[in-house]
Formats: sequence, structure tokens, C-alpha cells
Amino acid sequence: MSPSQRPTAPSGNLLYAQSGGVTAVINASAAGVIETARAKDVKVYAARNGILGALREELIDTSKESAAAITALRHTPGGAFGSCRYKLKSLEDNRAEYARLIDVFRAHDIRWFLYNGGNDSADTALKISQLGKAMNYDIRCIGVPKTVDNDLAVTDCCPGFGSVAKYTAISTLEASLDVASMAETSTKVFILEVMGRHAGWIAAAAGLAGEGVDAPPHIILFPENAFDEAAFLARVKATVERVGWCTVVASEGVRNAAGQFLAEAGTRDAFGHAQLGGVAPVLAALVKEKLGYKYHWALPDYLQRSARHAASAVDAEQAYAVGKAAVGYALAGMNAVMPVIVRSSDTPYRWKVEAAPLAKIANREKKMPKSFITPDGFGITTAARRYLAPLIQGQAHPPHGRDGLPKYGRLKNTAVAKKLPTFER
Amino acid sequence: MSPSQRPTAPSGNLLYAQSGGVTAVINASAAGVIETARAKDVKVYAARNGILGALREELIDTSKESAAAITALRHTPGGAFGSCRYKLKSLEDNRAEYARLIDVFRAHDIRWFLYNGGNDSADTALKISQLGKAMNYDIRCIGVPKTVDNDLAVTDCCPGFGSVAKYTAISTLEASLDVASMAETSTKVFILEVMGRHAGWIAAAAGLAGEGVDAPPHIILFPENAFDEAAFLARVKATVERVGWCTVVASEGVRNAAGQFLAEAGTRDAFGHAQLGGVAPVLAALVKEKLGYKYHWALPDYLQRSARHAASAVDAEQAYAVGKAAVGYALAGMNAVMPVIVRSSDTPYRWKVEAAPLAKIANREKKMPKSFITPDGFGITTAARRYLAPLIQGQAHPPHGRDGLPKYGRLKNTAVAKKLPTFER
Repeated sequence: MSPSQRPTAPSGNLLYAQSGGVTAVINASAAGVIETARAKDVKVYAARNGILGALREELIDTSKESAAAITALRHTPGGAFGSCRYKLKSLEDNRAEYARLIDVFRAHDIRWFLYNGGNDSADTALKISQLGKAMNYDIRCIGVPKTVDNDLAVTDCCPGFGSVAKYTAISTLEASLDVASMAETSTKVFILEVMGRHAGWIAAAAGLAGEGVDAPPHIILFPENAFDEAAFLARVKATVERVGWCTVVASEGVRNAAGQFLAEAGTRDAFGHAQLGGVAPVLAALVKEKLGYKYHWALPDYLQRSARHAASAVDAEQAYAVGKAAVGYALAGMNAVMPVIVRSSDTPYRWKVEAAPLAKIANREKKMPKSFITPDGFGITTAARRYLAPLIQGQAHPPHGRDGLPKYGRLKNTAVAKKLPTFER
Repeated sequence: MSPSQRPTAPSGNLLYAQSGGVTAVINASAAGVIETARAKDVKVYAARNGILGALREELIDTSKESAAAITALRHTPGGAFGSCRYKLKSLEDNRAEYARLIDVFRAHDIRWFLYNGGNDSADTALKISQLGKAMNYDIRCIGVPKTVDNDLAVTDCCPGFGSVAKYTAISTLEASLDVASMAETSTKVFILEVMGRHAGWIAAAAGLAGEGVDAPPHIILFPENAFDEAAFLARVKATVERVGWCTVVASEGVRNAAGQFLAEAGTRDAFGHAQLGGVAPVLAALVKEKLGYKYHWALPDYLQRSARHAASAVDAEQAYAVGKAAVGYALAGMNAVMPVIVRSSDTPYRWKVEAAPLAKIANREKKMPKSFITPDGFGITTAARRYLAPLIQGQAHPPHGRDGLPKYGRLKNTAVAKKLPTFER
């Protein structure tokens, strides 16, 4: 097709920004955005380090990247343009920041803003979507869903979650095979601490490692239930006596009946400060003190959310699809929406992407349904399995080099020349 | 080939036992043993839970397993027959246990004993190899190398190490991409604690994640060097100021100048006991206290040594090869040897298996050469890279089910009928 035959490209540039904790597949959404926009001859700028880059006028020109470099984003974990934890205040409280954003948009002819994040980011995206009228500048704003916490409203699931779910289920399975072989003379209780400060979605996914009372994980601890020490210890003891060993998966956000995080309830670091992070060592100490069993514990931390080498193919595909859809919505003139995943069938798994109003997503938190946790509080139900199982399906192995390591992409991240004075907050 | 045409099978049965901490590929050695013995019409018994099963006459008849089940061992982590930490005392100190082993061997016509473990197990294998003469029973004993610690003498490397090395390098790479994206407003220092109480082989392998002063890991802490707090903090600070963030990989066995494990130096659990395990939280607290940086830390524990999903193809192949060779040596009438890996070329990587005397391996510990650690003590040298790089090459992805999880094998582990009275130690 010669240039003259091309349909006229929509006028203006598109700005894409990553927000909040990154995931194994957020860059797949970036690839979906950039490849789709390129096909429509729309230039994509990316904000360096999320919304901070937009405020600082630190923009990256993605048109300087090769097609291969953008495609490599589909299998590269982390946030290729940088992300940040920074929430804009309300328009009333911080008009200067919003005015600055519009100044930056205007200076670089940005007509579409795509914000890839969780519920805080959906709130920011919603505010910016309303800014155009208030500040007399034509800007369309689309949210792109992302969060390992799987806690966004409306969407059936959140890109990023399926991969951490898969990593957690695989790790639970593998470590349990290890513990089972050694239990006769060594570790009897293994505790895996996973992310999830307010919701137990990731811990629940560990339940996919096995089914039946004797299969690991034998105990899952959710932030949704107050920790019952006596019931926990009784279950550990019964499991060790019956199976020979016991695998426990605990959400970092497990709290006692008084509402305190277990991770903060008593452990002191080398300087005598209450030690943050680490419900696993607290549970391990409890098991040792009250039951006398040998224990081991693991805390994969960032390893779980960056484990692109073990990503879910479904998750990677959905992450790309929401990026692609967001560009479609933007160029079609839509505003204040987010592409969400709609599930039409569990088995076989069928899903599609639809637009949902940001107003229904911003600042809301989807809790895990009570019906997903067994009555004893220590496991997942059949309904939970039905929901979770499709999300970890399929492998999306990244290409590996001859050195045996995944070939993760690296962008040039060429800066766009600044046109405005420095912004002083 | 009809049965009449077959060469006469050697007379007697072969006993195989797994010992000490299991790995992602120890079952590949088991597959090598069983498949090779089957091809020679030799029956393989396996001891349940290692040498304890031999003492207790708890034997498993592997001939009850299908060919497919044995092949599945090639990609199944953990120890399929159970392992244990149990070291036989000297013949003088515990003649009864040795006499019992011979009783069990005699009762089940066991003429070859293959012991799959580390340097302690090599010592046990050596003792048993000398037992025949002393107790007037014809038994050949062959060691099969296995340890994630990579500390066996003579052999160029140890089956099990390559896979944990690969897992560690991949995890370091992935988590660093995560930290890099978030460092502007979040974690500046990430600490990954890996196994290695006496030798820094696994920590060294993390160095394969990147090369050059700005690539992660920026700091590796080895048990070989006394921890220098001032030098460590200065390096963390310089790295954060130059790169924006810093990835630290620490061996669990890092000690201070007084020889104390850092992991035990000060941290108290919820009950006020000195907390064992966890050099990462101690380092993190130090970074926070002295430099004020936000930190995260991870402790993958058993996840690293059971991560068959990310195994090294070279490692899996070597694990199978030593199992296969061990059977060859045994049936050829050799005694008191271990198949070891001999490297003839780094690039391209070339290796073969040879027999080495157990006497040169038992109870010895191969330290990491000083030439593998950079003069500043925080990194690996070119010589280390040359040695380590081949060991993580190639992917050996296990087959996955439609559920998205690796299809790990599970044996029936049919017990052999006991013929002896219970052994009272």
C-alpha cells in the first residue's frame, strides 16, 4: 500500500503510561497498544516512570524502536518505560498538577491518554478523562487493566494475575514434592508466603496445585479470615500425623482477630524494630514453639510477579488484547472507559474484551467471594477452582538465548525533546 | 530378540537409594539407573526414604512401574522414593547397622547398591563397598553424584546444581527488571537470599544474570568472604546513586568477621528466640537503618532446588547420564567408584562421564576457587563465568497438562514383602 492509499491517520499523538506495581505481562499490554497504534499510523509516546513522567514532561518516543523490539515486549517482564506509585489528588486539591498535564498534552499534541494500572490508576484516568471539558482541551482517556491483586471491579480477571497464579501453583506443587521426599527426617511443615495484603486471590491460586485433603497445599490462609491460632495448629498437627508433612500457603495480609497483620505481631529485626513483611517466619516460629515440628519457609516476593519464564499463556494473551482494545476505543473517540475481560464459558474457557465505564471501576476493590473459601477457612471450593483454573492455562515460554537465559527485550527509550519549563510541584 | 537369544542377565538385584537434600533432577538419575538396568534384565529395588529404608527393609519394587512412569522421572522434581538425612557411623561405632544392611542385601539377593547423594553419602557408599570382604558377602557399591551445593570433589560439577543455578540467574534477572521499573518511587534495594551455607556456588550463578558494573546483580555476598558492613553499605549507596537501584544476592551462609552467621546475628522471632535462616532480612534492616532506602527481599528456599519447570537441559542430561553410567560400572563388576563429569571444553561445552574412586570424594568439600570472586569480593570473574555458563544451557521444560501445570510423575511405590524381623537400633 503506498502512502497515498493509506486512510488518513487520526490527528494527534497517543500517550501511554504504566502505573503501580509491575507484572510479568504489563509489557504485553504495551505491545498491544504500540503495535495497534502503529498500524493506524498513530505515534505513541510513553511516559517515563508513569504519571511522574507526564508531569515532568519526560516522554519517550516509541517510534524510535524497531518492530522487533516492540514485539519482544510481549515476553518481557517488568515495566519497560518505568512505573511509579503516585496518586494524583482531587482536582480541587491540586489543580496545578492537572493543569500541568494538560500543558504537556498540548505541547506534544497528545489527544489520547492510556493509563495502564489498577484501581487507583483507574481513578486517575477517570479524572483526566473529565479534564478535557474543565480545561478546554480535547483529550480522550482510556484505562488499561493491570494488577496481580486481581481486585479490579467489573472485569472477570486482571491481566497480571494469571501469571502470578500460575507461578504460585507451580511453586507450591514443586516445593511440596521436595518436602514429601524429605519429611521422614527433615522438614515437616513448609510455609509459602505469597502476595495479597487485602485479598487472598494469589493464595487461592496455590490451591490449583492439588485437589483432595491429602494433596498440597493442605492449608491456605486468607486475609479474608481472622487467623485462628488453635484451629491452624490443630490442622497442621492432623495433617502431619496423617500425611507425614504439611504445606501451608499464607497471604502476606493474614491478620489476627484484633485486625493486626501477623507479619507485624512481634517479630523484631536486628535493630529491635518491629519487622515488616514476613507472615511466614511468624507462622514457622509458632509451629516450632507449639508443635515442635521442623519447618522451612519461603517468601518469593518480587520473584512471583516478575516470573515471565513461567507466565500463563491466557494471561499474556489477555494483557495484549486489552492494550489492543484500548487503542481501538481511543481512536473510535470513546472516553472514560476500560477494556475488561468478559467470560462466557469456564470449560472450554471463552472470553472476550468489552468496554466498561471507568466510573464503575475507579477506587473499587473486588473481594474474593465468600463462596470461594471452604467453610473451615483453609481451602478453596469447587467454584473457586472453576473460576481460577482457566487463568493459568497454556505456556508462554519466552525465547531463550544460547546462554540458557530468557531473551528479554530492552528498549532504547529515546527521550522526546522538552518544550516546557520545568514543573515545580 | 527372543528370550533365548538374550545375553544371560547378571545374577542378583540392584538397590538404589536417594540421600540428603533432593534436587530438581535427582529423579532423572533414578530414571537413568532403572532404564539402564531394565535393558539388562536386572531388577531394581529402591529404598524408601534412603538408607533408612534399607535398614528397615522398606524396599520398593520398581519393576511394578510402567516404562512411561519411569520415563516421567526424568522431568519430575523431588525424590520419588523418599530421601533422608542420616549418616551411618563408622563400622567400629555401629557394627549392628552394617550387619543389618548385609542381612537385608542377602535376604533380597542385592548384589549392587547405588547410593545417590553428596559427600556424606559418598562416605557411606565407600564404607558399604568395603563391607563385602569384612562380612563375607559379595556386594558392589557405586556412588551417584547429586547436590545443589556443587561441592563434590573430583567431578567438574554436580547434577542438581545446574538447575538451581539457572533458576537463580533467571530469578535475579526477572526481579531486577521489576525493581528497575519501580525504583523511582518504590524499592531501591532488592535482596535475594540463596542456598549455600559453606560455599557460594549458587550465589555465584546469579552473576550470570548480567555482566558489567551496571547490570544486576550489583553485589553478591559469598560465605567465602567475611561480611564487611562498611564496604557493603558503600557499594549499595554508590550503586543506587549511579544506577538508581541495586540488586544484592546473598548466600545464606554469609558470616561476619567473628565467624557468626549474619542470619543469626540479632534477629528475634515472635517468641524472642534467635531467628534462624534469613540473612536477607538482616541485610535489609541494615540498609534501611544506615542508608534509609526502601527495600524488598526474597527467600525462595525449597522453590530454588525443586524448580524443575526451569531446569537446565545440561543438568538434566548429566543427571541421567551418571545414573546410566553407575549401572554400567556396577554390572561390569566395579566397586567403590562414582561416575563423575569431566569437562573437555567450555565453548562449545563438551563433557563426558568417567569413573572416579569414592575414596577421593568421600567427606571432601570442593570450595569455590578464590579466582572466581572479584578482588572487591562482590562479584564473579571471567573464569567463574566460563565455568558456570555451560551448566545452565538449554531448556528442559517438563510436559504440561491442559490445566497449565507441569505433569509430574507419581509412582505406585509397591512395597517388597519383608523377609526379616524388625530391626531395632
